Amino acid sequence: MQWEAVLAPRMGRMKASEIRELLKLLDQPDIISFAGGIPDPKLFPTESFRDALARALEPGKADAALQYSVSEGSMALRRWLAQHMAGLGMPCGVDNILITSGSQQALDYLGKLMIGTDDTVLVNWPTYLGALGAFNAYEPRYDRLDPGSNREAADFAQTAKAAGGKPKFIYLSVDFANPTGETLDRAQRDRVLTLAEELDCAIVEDAAYQALRYDGEPIPPILALEIAQKGNIDACRTIYCGSFSKTLAPGLRVGWIVAASDVIRRLVLMKQAADLHSSTLNQIAVADVAERVFESHVAGLRAVYRQRRDAMLAALDREMPEGVRWKKPEGGMFVWITLPEGMDGAALLARAIQTERVAFVPGRAFFADGSGANTIRLSFSLNEPEVVAQGIARLAKVIRASM
Amino acid sequence: MQWEAVLAPRMGRMKASEIRELLKLLDQPDIISFAGGIPDPKLFPTESFRDALARALEPGKADAALQYSVSEGSMALRRWLAQHMAGLGMPCGVDNILITSGSQQALDYLGKLMIGTDDTVLVNWPTYLGALGAFNAYEPRYDRLDPGSNREAADFAQTAKAAGGKPKFIYLSVDFANPTGETLDRAQRDRVLTLAEELDCAIVEDAAYQALRYDGEPIPPILALEIAQKGNIDACRTIYCGSFSKTLAPGLRVGWIVAASDVIRRLVLMKQAADLHSSTLNQIAVADVAERVFESHVAGLRAVYRQRRDAMLAALDREMPEGVRWKKPEGGMFVWITLPEGMDGAALLARAIQTERVAFVPGRAFFADGSGANTIRLSFSLNEPEVVAQGIARLAKVIRASM
Repeated sequence: MQWEAVLAPRMGRMKASEIRELLKLLDQPDIISFAGGIPDPKLFPTESFRDALARALEPGKADAALQYSVSEGSMALRRWLAQHMAGLGMPCGVDNILITSGSQQALDYLGKLMIGTDDTVLVNWPTYLGALGAFNAYEPRYDRLDPGSNREAADFAQTAKAAGGKPKFIYLSVDFANPTGETLDRAQRDRVLTLAEELDCAIVEDAAYQALRYDGEPIPPILALEIAQKGNIDACRTIYCGSFSKTLAPGLRVGWIVAASDVIRRLVLMKQAADLHSSTLNQIAVADVAERVFESHVAGLRAVYRQRRDAMLAALDREMPEGVRWKKPEGGMFVWITLPEGMDGAALLARAIQTERVAFVPGRAFFADGSGANTIRLSFSLNEPEVVAQGIARLAKVIRASM
Repeated sequence: MQWEAVLAPRMGRMKASEIRELLKLLDQPDIISFAGGIPDPKLFPTESFRDALARALEPGKADAALQYSVSEGSMALRRWLAQHMAGLGMPCGVDNILITSGSQQALDYLGKLMIGTDDTVLVNWPTYLGALGAFNAYEPRYDRLDPGSNREAADFAQTAKAAGGKPKFIYLSVDFANPTGETLDRAQRDRVLTLAEELDCAIVEDAAYQALRYDGEPIPPILALEIAQKGNIDACRTIYCGSFSKTLAPGLRVGWIVAASDVIRRLVLMKQAADLHSSTLNQIAVADVAERVFESHVAGLRAVYRQRRDAMLAALDREMPEGVRWKKPEGGMFVWITLPEGMDGAALLARAIQTERVAFVPGRAFFADGSGANTIRLSFSLNEPEVVAQGIARLAKVIRASM
């Protein structure tokens, strides 16, 4: 059978990532990897999950924990999240929350909700690769949102119209973004909100790393700024995506969307049709663990990851040759490196693995237009400070040899 | 904000189900409900899950159980499934299997894989409501596949072309289908396969209830027939969707797709973009429980559900007035009732809840064209035999009063 003949047009946009294929080869023990942007499993609250799962399966509770449940998500978890969000300056009710199977699913659903073929999504260059992957299934165009530029709304609207659609939403990660580690300042957040008002489009605020701030003052999320402005989440155009993957554990696939109840109502119907609901048991376990240890656990994570970030920054300062640039991230898991003009991150990776046994992610994949060849992403989340230092020394050696 | 202005066209097809809203009101204890087509939680293998989860979170294993994992799904689970499928006459390898978050997600992904706007999907009338809900997001047309008719392939192709697309796949549940309880015989299965060959389209075979056969000889799944014919799953056009929801427990959301590796490869990319992977922990737990108790557990389920089915059939024979018709299902959870012409299932439900405190699902929702007003679906899965008998007596009373 020739499957091409029965595929939907959207499948033309789904391609295997060469990088991901390359990174599959990385589990040799002598490689120091800065590639995966994943949490350190040694830091998971395993005991808490073991206890929570045992409690969820006690007699009298197990029936509900293993049964079908509502598409909206666990009431206990949504109640905890409503309080949690209020504590972050975003007061909301349980009807403003949908539980998703990780925030990746949130991105997929929001693309499905808003993107018609050839509509435009405004994104940073570079941006989270997984967001582009999720949105691509709905066949959008992308336009570049540079928070530093003064490009006007009319120009974005005009470009979108010329491409055959309209601007549906602005997607961005405001704190310690994947891949750049950058944080939007208050003025940039205000500007994004103004731009969305002028375009009458939505904002998708990806908060995957927000809890992992290591220094500096927290800046209010865009949703918090908008609620403060409008007085009520139900009047807001910002849709906030949260995740427990970077704070508790990713393997349970629990994330959430907070938005106007008009949006949540539609997303509940979508979820019902797409997978009925996220795992009942996992939602119960996450609610239990969050209630008991969230704040203290995340404080512990911050202390450990801060050390690793500092070790990476110190090693970069020490080891890197002239012409290599980076900025200090105030949180998250990533340091974004700009190599000298003309140096290719993908070629460097091949050489780095072969000669010095060190790995990272070439930056080009994060650019919707395929630029950014001379950038690479380093993650400091998985390695102890001394290993970080050793890995950066190896990387610097490969870079010098490539200059 | 006017959300309508940023919604994708597909959202016009996502509507709240009136029936589902009505059924939300059903948890009063004096109502006997034949509505929900869900497994009895008293039959869940709770002890086995408790042990499996504890094992998965033992030191040395917990790190992997709580971490990100591959989009394809757990290797242990895919290995078990490959053996299980071989035992059902469908030899395949781990590369022919994708783990999904329940078989509802499988239906969503297969719609996403194949349906372009105005393409045609061939379905039974009536058919599983959740399949229509999943496919609707991709804006198909439906054409009626009546396994008893001799309508020719050219006619299906012509109708699809006139609607602006082509026939992409045939969707059907071959054993004890939801909602009718009907099973396709061997000749009907052969005919479906021939029709798909002639249309050069795929077949989506929904096997959600296949393990729950209470009597009669098992009939080979369409995929088994096709593998026997072609010698190799990679040459097959049938895509098989399985689920642990009716055999182990639905709350963990674990299902699977078995198909040619060409199809699985594309679905893996889709899953990566849509939710990364299904819960790592739940897949490990399901693999463990399946390895240890699947066969014995399902044998136990069959014994209990068979009694409930028999109690329902006996009560129907005893209680129902002339003009009410049904067929004996050989398995599954449902008996499909045809009421006298002119009687309306939805009106009957309102009356049944109010006067006799008995509930069921009106059949019209299962027809893609809105016909079938005089049909209702009864599920026997949730009630003990004596309660089943009492509920059918109540239902007969309401029907007689409506004649």
